[in-house]
Amino acid sequence: MNYSMISYILGWIFNFEAAFMLLPGITAIIYREKDGLAFLVTMIICLAIGIPLIRTKRKNKVFHAKEGAVTVALSWLVLSIAGALPFVISGSIPHPVDALFETVSGFTTTGASILSDVESLSHCILLWRSFTHWIGGMGVLVFILCLLPLTGGYHMNLMKAESPGPSVSKLVPKVQSTAKILYTIYILMTVVEMVFLLLGGMPLFDTLCLSFGTAGTGGFGIKNDSIASYSTYNQIVITVFMILFGVNFNAYYLLLSKKVMQAAKNEEVRYYLGIIGLAIVAIAVNTRDMFTSFGRAFQQAAFQVGSIITTTGYATTDFNVWPVFSKTILVILMFVGACAGSTGGGIKVSRLLILCKSARKELQLYLHPNAVKKIKMDEKAIPHEVVRATNMFLFVYIMIFVTSLLVISLDNLDMISNFTAITATLNNIGPGLGAVGPTGNFGCYSYISKLVMIFDMLAGRLEVFPLLLLFKRDTWRKF
Amino acid sequence: MNYSMISYILGWIFNFEAAFMLLPGITAIIYREKDGLAFLVTMIICLAIGIPLIRTKRKNKVFHAKEGAVTVALSWLVLSIAGALPFVISGSIPHPVDALFETVSGFTTTGASILSDVESLSHCILLWRSFTHWIGGMGVLVFILCLLPLTGGYHMNLMKAESPGPSVSKLVPKVQSTAKILYTIYILMTVVEMVFLLLGGMPLFDTLCLSFGTAGTGGFGIKNDSIASYSTYNQIVITVFMILFGVNFNAYYLLLSKKVMQAAKNEEVRYYLGIIGLAIVAIAVNTRDMFTSFGRAFQQAAFQVGSIITTTGYATTDFNVWPVFSKTILVILMFVGACAGSTGGGIKVSRLLILCKSARKELQLYLHPNAVKKIKMDEKAIPHEVVRATNMFLFVYIMIFVTSLLVISLDNLDMISNFTAITATLNNIGPGLGAVGPTGNFGCYSYISKLVMIFDMLAGRLEVFPLLLLFKRDTWRKF
Ligand SMILES: [K+]
Ligand SMILES: [K+]
Repeated sequence: MNYSMISYILGWIFNFEAAFMLLPGITAIIYREKDGLAFLVTMIICLAIGIPLIRTKRKNKVFHAKEGAVTVALSWLVLSIAGALPFVISGSIPHPVDALFETVSGFTTTGASILSDVESLSHCILLWRSFTHWIGGMGVLVFILCLLPLTGGYHMNLMKAESPGPSVSKLVPKVQSTAKILYTIYILMTVVEMVFLLLGGMPLFDTLCLSFGTAGTGGFGIKNDSIASYSTYNQIVITVFMILFGVNFNAYYLLLSKKVMQAAKNEEVRYYLGIIGLAIVAIAVNTRDMFTSFGRAFQQAAFQVGSIITTTGYATTDFNVWPVFSKTILVILMFVGACAGSTGGGIKVSRLLILCKSARKELQLYLHPNAVKKIKMDEKAIPHEVVRATNMFLFVYIMIFVTSLLVISLDNLDMISNFTAITATLNNIGPGLGAVGPTGNFGCYSYISKLVMIFDMLAGRLEVFPLLLLFKRDTWRKF
Repeated sequence: MNYSMISYILGWIFNFEAAFMLLPGITAIIYREKDGLAFLVTMIICLAIGIPLIRTKRKNKVFHAKEGAVTVALSWLVLSIAGALPFVISGSIPHPVDALFETVSGFTTTGASILSDVESLSHCILLWRSFTHWIGGMGVLVFILCLLPLTGGYHMNLMKAESPGPSVSKLVPKVQSTAKILYTIYILMTVVEMVFLLLGGMPLFDTLCLSFGTAGTGGFGIKNDSIASYSTYNQIVITVFMILFGVNFNAYYLLLSKKVMQAAKNEEVRYYLGIIGLAIVAIAVNTRDMFTSFGRAFQQAAFQVGSIITTTGYATTDFNVWPVFSKTILVILMFVGACAGSTGGGIKVSRLLILCKSARKELQLYLHPNAVKKIKMDEKAIPHEVVRATNMFLFVYIMIFVTSLLVISLDNLDMISNFTAITATLNNIGPGLGAVGPTGNFGCYSYISKLVMIFDMLAGRLEVFPLLLLFKRDTWRKF
């Protein structure tokens, strides 16, 4: 294990965290809020740890996939613990586990909250909550890669471990350039959304917070009723951008490179949009009688479907009271998730596509035992290792789900709340049904359950394996 | 497709069904019940179709895995449709879909019922319900294999498709002899259970029905409160035999062959018993306060755990009112299921073992990318095909689950009832929670939902693939 290199990168994580806190810091100055001091204190702590760490000697240049995964997992832990300090220091969330829950929920773009009254928070705290979504959405290590002059095989192994989806495709030969392209698209789209929301008459502070939340598919709101009190125009803008941020960013790069046909042929994106279309129509028809017109039902269905499949988790209506058919569709979409290479969570459409194609092949083999056929996606054969890793992902994902469910069931809340609480945290969605529905929050669970869900949120964002490696003795052995 | 051979075997299915109905027929004579006429009529119909079919010329001797799977799937359909006739003709269950549901539930050893008052049924009808469990438990084609002088590659391909588990191991080189050994053990154990129940003072008719239900891990009761009104002694006898019938029958064969050490080393059986032990203790502690003593809580926990993990589905208490932790354990056990090569349903312990071992290997590969390790079970390497098929089983199983859940949610029953209704039918358990809990029944669902669940019960019993092949156009093409 290359400890010197790992602590070097962790040092940069501390330093970047301090830099990120400039934004809430400035907000505090503008609004003259004393919570700003909490950010100042945290920044000093971060730099005091971070600067010595990046000055240590790096003897060893070897950096395997294993080191990449461990570094990413540890980075996210460090990021979350340091990010939770302002909540504790300012007294906004006094208990450390609660503060950690809220911060992990932020960085992993889950958006599950233990707070019942977010409107009582100060502006700088609200902005920090939403900004963690934006940082976590595209990935903090991908961000560091854009700026840091790392050499050697680090890049790919770090990016592989942090980027969501069954396989990472480099847009351009250099990993650092890929990271830069991704962040450029990310920043541009965030700004465009802000402009559209401003045009709808939304205050600047709100556009900033909500755009961060949409871009990272995070879902922390700044009002107690999430998005319900904003105008229909702004709800529609957010719907469109939620769906756009759930698209594989490769497609945008192809569009920018004027390879429109190639972008339009992307199988994952086509299935993703197809599922969204079907789900919206089904729910709109099913909830028709609950709204004043079919148009209104359609708009609300589109918002909820977009919010859930992209795992954003904003809400404009309490879907707890919808008919069971519509609720079942939403729960299924919670597992489907967005595209690989987007900021969304869940199992991902491409994984499900790979599994579907594998299953069809298995059935074919029953009929023609000697036919050897490769599984293809976007006209390219999928390597055997990707199929195997996808299968294993599904199983380990189920195991984590079941174990978590069992532990939190000790709190004796009802089964639907428990089931959707794990669904909402492991898939980085935010709200579930029942006690953790759009009008509820996660404060009702015990601290043990919250720690379990903190693990689930991180496992969901890092796609299981990096986090599991931390708990394997073999990982820490020298060889 | 070898149609002549398939219709020959289907002919035998009709004839055997007629033979099976002699048992309820005799019961009707003993109890002088006019429902016996329904069996007489059905027997005549079956023979009228079956005898001409077995007389047709068989030109073609080729019989692939494909033909095996299709034959088994069609056999189970024929068996169920013919088996439902007595219910309709006697008027015990007037609607054909309801009657088919009850019969499929019987043969697939699910034990889910649409009846709210089984005590009003005649003895011969009750016996037929329970007898279908016994026939379906070890498999009707395995039974026919014992008696029919088939030649060629039929045997293995039929047995593969009907026997539960990721891979079929022949106990002895000849498949027909393997089938005979399995049925001998099956009959012996059923008789031993009857003797133990008779010693506990249970009436002969009850012992017959309940032993059939236990042996097949079926779960149809003959009282409205299932097993609750029987003595504690008899409940304990049933607990022990439920667990025994969930054991891989290979272990019994090894015991009979005096290879005790080899039997004791069977990994699947050891994990199966370990899971049962843990679950009983956890539930007994959790439900301690609901019973008069810890011993009573332990006995009730043992009964429910044995009933659920073996997918029998008998009940002695309404676990709907248990704490959420205990209910969650039971729901998890519903998916785990019994051992491969037993009469139980569910995913099967050995499949989960294979998946766990594969996942561990995948994690190892992260650490040592070049290490090539085979997954082993009982000290034998598991073939790559078995691992792949197991993965695909899991995925297709989930797809069927999700699709079914979506369709039945249109009935607008609550989500827990829907979720456990599909769990209980796809895993061949019987009772679920909520409206389909131990004190409820499946009568509340629409006919469309019942048809979906009929499909699920068959898919569960035949382990998905044979049934899916029926719906593939490619299957019916000549080549
Ligand atoms: K989210
Ligand atoms: K059963």
